[in-house]
Amino acid sequence: MKKVILDVDTGIDDAIGIMLAVKSEALDVVGITTVSGNVSLETATINTAKILDLLDDKKTPIFAGAAKPLTRNPHFEHRVHGEDGIGGALKGVATNREIQEQSAVDFIRTQVMNAPGDITLIMTGPLTNLAEAVQQYPEIISAVKEVVFMGGVVKGVGNVTPVAEYNMFADPEAASIVFEAGFHSLTQVGLDVTRSALLKDEHIDHIQNPVLQDYVRTSTATYRNSYFERNGVWACAMHDPLAVAIAIDAELVKTEWLHVTMETNSTYCDGQTICDFQNRLGHPANMHVCLELDEARFFDLFLKLLNA
Amino acid sequence: MKKVILDVDTGIDDAIGIMLAVKSEALDVVGITTVSGNVSLETATINTAKILDLLDDKKTPIFAGAAKPLTRNPHFEHRVHGEDGIGGALKGVATNREIQEQSAVDFIRTQVMNAPGDITLIMTGPLTNLAEAVQQYPEIISAVKEVVFMGGVVKGVGNVTPVAEYNMFADPEAASIVFEAGFHSLTQVGLDVTRSALLKDEHIDHIQNPVLQDYVRTSTATYRNSYFERNGVWACAMHDPLAVAIAIDAELVKTEWLHVTMETNSTYCDGQTICDFQNRLGHPANMHVCLELDEARFFDLFLKLLNA
Amino acid sequence: MKKVILDVDTGIDDAIGIMLAVKSEALDVVGITTVSGNVSLETATINTAKILDLLDDKKTPIFAGAAKPLTRNPHFEHRVHGEDGIGGALKGVATNREIQEQSAVDFIRTQVMNAPGDITLIMTGPLTNLAEAVQQYPEIISAVKEVVFMGGVVKGVGNVTPVAEYNMFADPEAASIVFEAGFHSLTQVGLDVTRSALLKDEHIDHIQNPVLQDYVRTSTATYRNSYFERNGVWACAMHDPLAVAIAIDAELVKTEWLHVTMETNSTYCDGQTICDFQNRLGHPANMHVCLELDEARFFDLFLKLLNA
Amino acid sequence: MKKVILDVDTGIDDAIGIMLAVKSEALDVVGITTVSGNVSLETATINTAKILDLLDDKKTPIFAGAAKPLTRNPHFEHRVHGEDGIGGALKGVATNREIQEQSAVDFIRTQVMNAPGDITLIMTGPLTNLAEAVQQYPEIISAVKEVVFMGGVVKGVGNVTPVAEYNMFADPEAASIVFEAGFHSLTQVGLDVTRSALLKDEHIDHIQNPVLQDYVRTSTATYRNSYFERNGVWACAMHDPLAVAIAIDAELVKTEWLHVTMETNSTYCDGQTICDFQNRLGHPANMHVCLELDEARFFDLFLKLLNA
Ligand SMILES: [Ca+2]
Ligand SMILES: [Ca+2]
Ligand SMILES: [Ca+2]
Ligand SMILES: [Ca+2]
Repeated sequence: MKKVILDVDTGIDDAIGIMLAVKSEALDVVGITTVSGNVSLETATINTAKILDLLDDKKTPIFAGAAKPLTRNPHFEHRVHGEDGIGGALKGVATNREIQEQSAVDFIRTQVMNAPGDITLIMTGPLTNLAEAVQQYPEIISAVKEVVFMGGVVKGVGNVTPVAEYNMFADPEAASIVFEAGFHSLTQVGLDVTRSALLKDEHIDHIQNPVLQDYVRTSTATYRNSYFERNGVWACAMHDPLAVAIAIDAELVKTEWLHVTMETNSTYCDGQTICDFQNRLGHPANMHVCLELDEARFFDLFLKLLNA
Repeated sequence: MKKVILDVDTGIDDAIGIMLAVKSEALDVVGITTVSGNVSLETATINTAKILDLLDDKKTPIFAGAAKPLTRNPHFEHRVHGEDGIGGALKGVATNREIQEQSAVDFIRTQVMNAPGDITLIMTGPLTNLAEAVQQYPEIISAVKEVVFMGGVVKGVGNVTPVAEYNMFADPEAASIVFEAGFHSLTQVGLDVTRSALLKDEHIDHIQNPVLQDYVRTSTATYRNSYFERNGVWACAMHDPLAVAIAIDAELVKTEWLHVTMETNSTYCDGQTICDFQNRLGHPANMHVCLELDEARFFDLFLKLLNA
Repeated sequence: MKKVILDVDTGIDDAIGIMLAVKSEALDVVGITTVSGNVSLETATINTAKILDLLDDKKTPIFAGAAKPLTRNPHFEHRVHGEDGIGGALKGVATNREIQEQSAVDFIRTQVMNAPGDITLIMTGPLTNLAEAVQQYPEIISAVKEVVFMGGVVKGVGNVTPVAEYNMFADPEAASIVFEAGFHSLTQVGLDVTRSALLKDEHIDHIQNPVLQDYVRTSTATYRNSYFERNGVWACAMHDPLAVAIAIDAELVKTEWLHVTMETNSTYCDGQTICDFQNRLGHPANMHVCLELDEARFFDLFLKLLNA
Repeated sequence: MKKVILDVDTGIDDAIGIMLAVKSEALDVVGITTVSGNVSLETATINTAKILDLLDDKKTPIFAGAAKPLTRNPHFEHRVHGEDGIGGALKGVATNREIQEQSAVDFIRTQVMNAPGDITLIMTGPLTNLAEAVQQYPEIISAVKEVVFMGGVVKGVGNVTPVAEYNMFADPEAASIVFEAGFHSLTQVGLDVTRSALLKDEHIDHIQNPVLQDYVRTSTATYRNSYFERNGVWACAMHDPLAVAIAIDAELVKTEWLHVTMETNSTYCDGQTICDFQNRLGHPANMHVCLELDEARFFDLFLKLLNA
C-alpha cells in the first residue's frame, strides 16, 4: 500500500477524491490536511469530517492547515461549490469528529521525516500547506516520495481567468515554491486532462451504495448545472478525484517531462502555468505534465473504488 | 482599390509580404513605413528599398519610423533572419532609392486624416509606429478604416518565449496601446493561422518570374532550415504575407470577435496575447481573431499575386 | 547667449518659467515645445501662446508635442492649476498666434542635429517629448549640450503620491528613458530645491510692469491657496521657473553627481526618483542632483528678469 | 511586568537586544522565537542559545521559526555580521541548551490566545514568523497587546538598497501582511531613530560586568569597523536593542501615528516603507512611526540594564 497524505479544500470534487482515496486498497491515507481554497479553512475542515463520517471511516485523522494563502487574500468560489462548499449535500448534518491539535505543516513534516522516501502527497487545493512546509522545513523536499497535484492548465483556457486554473490562481506564490523546490517526482494533473474526466448520469447510476449514489448526485447537482451553463453539457469534471486516481494508477494518463513555471507577478497572468514545450527558456524539466487521459479506464477505476 | 499603408520590419517574410501588396491590383500601397524589429530600423529601411528595386517599383514611397520600441531596448533576431535580415539574398546589392524626409508617424497621420475612413493599415512588425501615432494624434483612431496586424498567438505556444510571439514581445506596450485604442476594425493574424501558411518547395517551383523565384528560394533558405530544425519540416511560415493576403481577401480565414489583452508587466508573460474566449473578464470584444486558415486558397492567391 | 528649447505643459509655473526664459538676455529661446501634463496638450499649447502674447513676443515659435504619455493615460491636475491651467488668469483672452506644423520631436531633432553641442533643453513638464526624440533619433543624445529638467524628489515626500513628484509620475517610462540615455549633462531640479523657491507677496509687489505683476498675482492665487491649505503658508513654489533660472545661473544651487533611477513597475512607487547616495547599486552617476538652493539669489534673478 | 515574546535573527545587535530584554525587570520574556534573516535559522538559533548561556539564563525557552522568507530566498549578511553572525565573539563556544519542539508560530499562537491582551511582540528580524502566524491563525491579531518591530526607514536612505532597510527587504511580503493585519498597536522602530542610537567606546567602557563588556566589545568590532568604513565614525547603531528599549520605555522616542505601506512588487523599491506623511492615499494610520530619539535617555537605560 502507498502511504499518502491528502491535502484538500473540500469542495465538491475534493469530497469525491477523499472517497476514492479512503476506499482504495492501494492507498494508506495516513492523514488528511485541509487548506483555505474553494471554501474557508473551517468549512473545508468540517466538510472533510462529514465525508469521513459518511464513509464511516474510523481511523483517518484530519489536520487543519493554512487559513489564508501565503501572501494573498482568500478567493472563495461559493458560486460554484455552493454555500457549504459541497453543493448543500450534507447541510443539515452535524459532525463530532475531532480535529487534531497538530498543524497540517507539522503533520506533513513529521510523517515525511519519519518515513523518508515513503510518503506520497496528493494535493487537491491551493498549494499553501506544502509551500509552508518547504519554506519551514526544507529537509522534507528530498524525503517526499512524490507529489501529485491538481492544478493549472498548459494547453487550454483557465477556469478563473483566461489563463489560470483555480488552485494556481488562489495561491501562485505557493505553487511557485512547490514547482521550484526540487521534488524527486512532481506530477501536474491540470485541466488539460481533468476536463475530460466528465462525470455523467450514467456513471452516477452505476454507484451501488445508495447513500454514496445519493450523495454524489446531490452534491454535484449545482456543479453540473454550472458546467452546463458554461459548456452546454450535463456533466461535471472530476478534477480532484482524477489526481487521486492517478496516484493509484499512473497509467491513466500520458505525461511529458517538462519545465513549468508559475507566473506570480503580472497584471493579467498570475497563476498561469507556463509550460515550456519547446524548451525556449533552457530550464531543466521539473514535472510530469499530464496531457492525455484514458477516460474509460478512469471511470472503471472510479466506479470500482466507490463500489468497493 | 483599397488604399493601404504597409508597416514593416523587413525581415524575410515582410519582404515577401511587400511583394504581394505591391503586385496586388486590389491594393493601392500609398506608402511603406519601417520600424525597428527583427532587424534595426536602418536595415529594415534598406531592405524595403531593395525589395522595391527588385520589383522595379517606381512609385511607392518609404518612410522611416521608430528606431526603438516605445520604452524597451530592441530585440533583434539575426539568428532567424540572417545578418542582413533577408537571408542574405540581396547582400551585395546596392540601392539608391530615396527615403522620405517625413517621419512614419507623420505620414500615417497625414494620410489617415486626408482620407478619413479610407486607409487600411497592414502591420507586419512591432506596433511601435502605430502606437506612437495613436498617442500623439488620437484623432486618427476613428479615421482609420481598418488595421490588420501580424502578431501574437491565442491557442498555441509563442515563438520567442513559451507564450509570446515576436512582434508582440518586441514592443508589448505598443501592442497594448493599439489593442485598447478602439479602432473600428482590428484583425489579429497570429501564429494560430500563420503556422499553417507553410511555404514549401512545390510552391516556390510555381513562381514563374525567375528573379522572384530565385529571391524567394534564396531568402527563405536559412529560415526554412531553422524551421526544419525546430519542427522537422522543410518549409517556412508565411507570417507577414498572410496578413497582406487577409487584407486582400478576408475569406481566407475564419475569425472570432473576442477581447484580447496584452500583458506588459510580468516576469514571464510579457507580450502574451491573452484571448478571453469565455469572456471571464467581461470586456467587450476588441478584435477579429483569426482561428482557421484555408491554406489552399491562400497559396492560390499567393502564387497568383507573385505571377501577376 | 545659450540656445535653448523650452519644453512645457503650461501650467501656472511653466508660464512664469516661459517669462523668465524669453525675457532673459542670457538665453536664446529657439522654440517652445508643448506636452500633455498638468493640462491637455491643447490647453498647454494655447496657454503658451497666450503667455507669448502677454510678453509681446514676436519671434518664438511653438511646436505641439505628445498628446499623451508614452504608454499611460494622462493624469491632469486641474484642481491645482485651475480649469484653464493658469489659474484662470487669461481666461477670456483669445490668441491668434500660429502653432508650427512641425512636430515637437522633429523640431528638437532638427535643432539639435543642426547645431551639435549647442542646444540646451529645459524641460518643465513630463519628459515624453524628449523620450520620444531619444527613441526615434538616438543620434541626438550625444549632440545635446545639456538637459535641465524640473522633476522628482530625492530627500522629501512627493507631491502626487507619497514618493513621486508630478512630472515623473505622469510619465515614468519617459523619465526612465531620459535618465538612461547617457546625456553629457543632465541636471535634476527636484522638489528638494524647488520647495524652497517660495514666491510670496513681497516678491510679487516688486514686479514693476503692472501687467506682469497682475498676471503673476492672479494666476498664482489659487495655487498659493492650495499651497496654504497643505502647508499653512501663503506662498507658492516656483518649480518650473527655478529650472529656467538654473539653466541661466548654475550657481543658484549646490548639486551632487549621483545615480538616479526611475521606478516604472511597482504597486506604490511608480515615478519615484531613487537616488543612490551611498552607491549601493554600483551604477555610475547619471545626473547632477540639486540639493540646496540659494533662495535670495534666485529671487534676485527672478525679479531682475521680470523687470528687464 | 510586561509579558513579551522576542523574535530574533541573531545577529550582532539582536544579541544585545536579547541581553537587554532578559536582564530587564520590566519585561517577562516568555520565550524567544528565531527566524532566518541576517544569518540562517540554524545559526540564529544557536547564537540565541549562546547568548542565553552567557547571561546564565535558566528559564527562557527558544523556539525555531521560519527557515526562509515567505516566498523569497534568504538574503544573508555575513559581510556585516561575521561568519557566525555575532562578530565571531562566541565562535569556539559550544552550547547544550535545548531548543523546544514546538514551532515558533505555534508558540506565538498559544501564548497569545492563552493570555489575550497581555502579550507584547518585539520583532528584531524579518517579520516572517509573525506573518505566518497571522495567515494561519488570524484570531491572534486582536489578541496581541502590541507589536514593536525594528525595520524600515521613512525619511532617510536604506541600508540594503537605496530605499530599503534589511528586515523589510529580506521579507517584504511578511512585512506587508503585518502592516495590513490590523494590530491594536504597531510601532515601527526604523533607521530614522536607530541610526541615532550609536554605541561608542565610552558606552562600552561603562559596562561593569567584564564578561558582558568583553562580549559587546568583541562582537561589535567588525560591525563598528564596517560602520566606520561607510560613515567615518567608530560606532555602531543599536538597531535591535532600541526596539527592546522602546518596549520598556515608550518615552524614548517621539512618534507619529501614520499610514505606512510596504512595496513588494517593484523593480527597485521592494522592502521600502512608504510613509504617507501627507495622507495622499487616504488610508487610515496603521502604525506609530518613531521619528526622534532621546539618545541620552536610551543609553542611560541601556547601561542600567546591562549593569543590572
Ligand atoms: Ca479542490
Ligand atoms: Ca515582420
Ligand atoms: Ca510644468
Ligand atoms: Ca536583527
